[in-house]
Amino acid sequence: MRILLHRADGKTEPWIKDFARHLPEAEVVVWQPGVKAAPCDYAIVWSPPEAMLRELSEVKAIFLTGAGADAILKFEQEISHEIPIIRLGDAGMGIQMAEYVTHAVLRYFRRLDEYDTQARAGVWDQLPQHHKEDFAVGVLGMGVLGMRVIQALKEFGFPVRGWSRTEKHVDGMQCFYGPEGLDTFLRGSNAVVCMLPLTPETSNVLNRGNMLKLPQGAYIINVARGAHVNEPDLLNLIKSGHIAGATLDVFRNEPLPMQHPFWQEPRVTITPHIAALTLRRESVQQIAGKIRQLEKGEPVADVINRLHGY
Amino acid sequence: MRILLHRADGKTEPWIKDFARHLPEAEVVVWQPGVKAAPCDYAIVWSPPEAMLRELSEVKAIFLTGAGADAILKFEQEISHEIPIIRLGDAGMGIQMAEYVTHAVLRYFRRLDEYDTQARAGVWDQLPQHHKEDFAVGVLGMGVLGMRVIQALKEFGFPVRGWSRTEKHVDGMQCFYGPEGLDTFLRGSNAVVCMLPLTPETSNVLNRGNMLKLPQGAYIINVARGAHVNEPDLLNLIKSGHIAGATLDVFRNEPLPMQHPFWQEPRVTITPHIAALTLRRESVQQIAGKIRQLEKGEPVADVINRLHGY
Repeated sequence: MRILLHRADGKTEPWIKDFARHLPEAEVVVWQPGVKAAPCDYAIVWSPPEAMLRELSEVKAIFLTGAGADAILKFEQEISHEIPIIRLGDAGMGIQMAEYVTHAVLRYFRRLDEYDTQARAGVWDQLPQHHKEDFAVGVLGMGVLGMRVIQALKEFGFPVRGWSRTEKHVDGMQCFYGPEGLDTFLRGSNAVVCMLPLTPETSNVLNRGNMLKLPQGAYIINVARGAHVNEPDLLNLIKSGHIAGATLDVFRNEPLPMQHPFWQEPRVTITPHIAALTLRRESVQQIAGKIRQLEKGEPVADVINRLHGY
Repeated sequence: MRILLHRADGKTEPWIKDFARHLPEAEVVVWQPGVKAAPCDYAIVWSPPEAMLRELSEVKAIFLTGAGADAILKFEQEISHEIPIIRLGDAGMGIQMAEYVTHAVLRYFRRLDEYDTQARAGVWDQLPQHHKEDFAVGVLGMGVLGMRVIQALKEFGFPVRGWSRTEKHVDGMQCFYGPEGLDTFLRGSNAVVCMLPLTPETSNVLNRGNMLKLPQGAYIINVARGAHVNEPDLLNLIKSGHIAGATLDVFRNEPLPMQHPFWQEPRVTITPHIAALTLRRESVQQIAGKIRQLEKGEPVADVINRLHGY
């Protein structure tokens, strides 16, 4: 069996070593521009270069080394629908997302962002505490990562509510769905955590109109994709005070350009797309397992639905 | 029944209202300097003024509106040992401690303090992640608040270890105890959370000698009392790089004096003693319940052991 591997960062050696351990029967071939690789059974990519599309059309399945399919689905038309595209399941990303989001929610809930500002000015002043009943956290997207975050927030007793494309029922929380459920979801969420897949329907979901539906002083946390947020709208609503703060791990352009006004806005917390890094060992283990299932003709989880875009 | 109440902040009305609801048979008398109150059955104080000691010597029990007894035990000699001093149990402080400490641990573990520094300089740079197996969190003090914090940290998969004065066994974690267990505890803790009661034995526990036993690059989180930390020692060890950062909610002198060097050290995070505020309603409810038990001649929890100092 031959596996075609592409890594944008060029660091292919550790992946080859991990595959040698978890799928020793496979030969891993590193894709190189201009070099026609021997026919491969599977491809492992995240955001493949366009020049790789020919080889991607010849494999039995394409594995993504990430949870989002948006980077490959821009080539949707050029990849035969008979080739399944399979994203990572949790693979260690769920706990990382839970850590990152819990940290951000606790920081806002306990006003630690404001205490930090005070401390920098040498001010010792106890602020009134927020109450949990006035601090509903709304999670946009209830996939495997969203549910892991919801679980972590529930442990701290936050009133958690979720929104998803299709109807879901989860014990101990309010669930909303579809375009008709979004308004009510937004109007009752004091903090919104975006964990959606990026699709034409979810792109720009955090625009001015939708963010204005949030209660005054709401917080935004985006750990999904930059294109979910209209960045100028968010900046304006922060400056007007409607949005009290935003923690953003993803941006329209990454790295965030030096001249971007977010860098100058203290109420925007910027991290460089680190909320959930792909963990190589967990990913290789998961992909190796799925390849074994496919070889046996068994169904595998996390196959992208091209219609839904995730 | 008559209850003598002292509040340093003078805000006694809400306490009186809450007692009217939870213990309607009691008359609440606000202590005033120079005014001899009618004889009272119980007293409710935290850090009582010295002038109040005479009245405190005439009640059946003294209730503290905090988890620590250090503020009243400075008068230990002057309060008859026959009068039980009863501190608050959890009373809503446990979850607050869990929130505060989890936030601080996640911030260091995910290097969000460093990302914050980077963002302020306009730097977009992904840092290598810490691994949980190299990020053992040691909790000093395994009382009701310490155990709540331990539970929250375990949910995130941190290797948690605890130290207490006397031997304890808790599933799924290493427990150390007594002076002879402290060394091993410290040598294996990459972050130390101080949740100890302040007693002559625990005062200054985070001094140079003990902090040097921590692994290089360890973190300190103090949510107990300022006197647990030798402040110049901590500052020196931060400047030398042995301690990577400290999150301090309590200080030798509060408010932290304006000229204190902690304000100028970016690796020290300062909050104004807000990690766990006394929640009035929860406290009144708990105290009212304990008074009812005492009136029936039943034993109550959280009676201070004067010998141990907590």
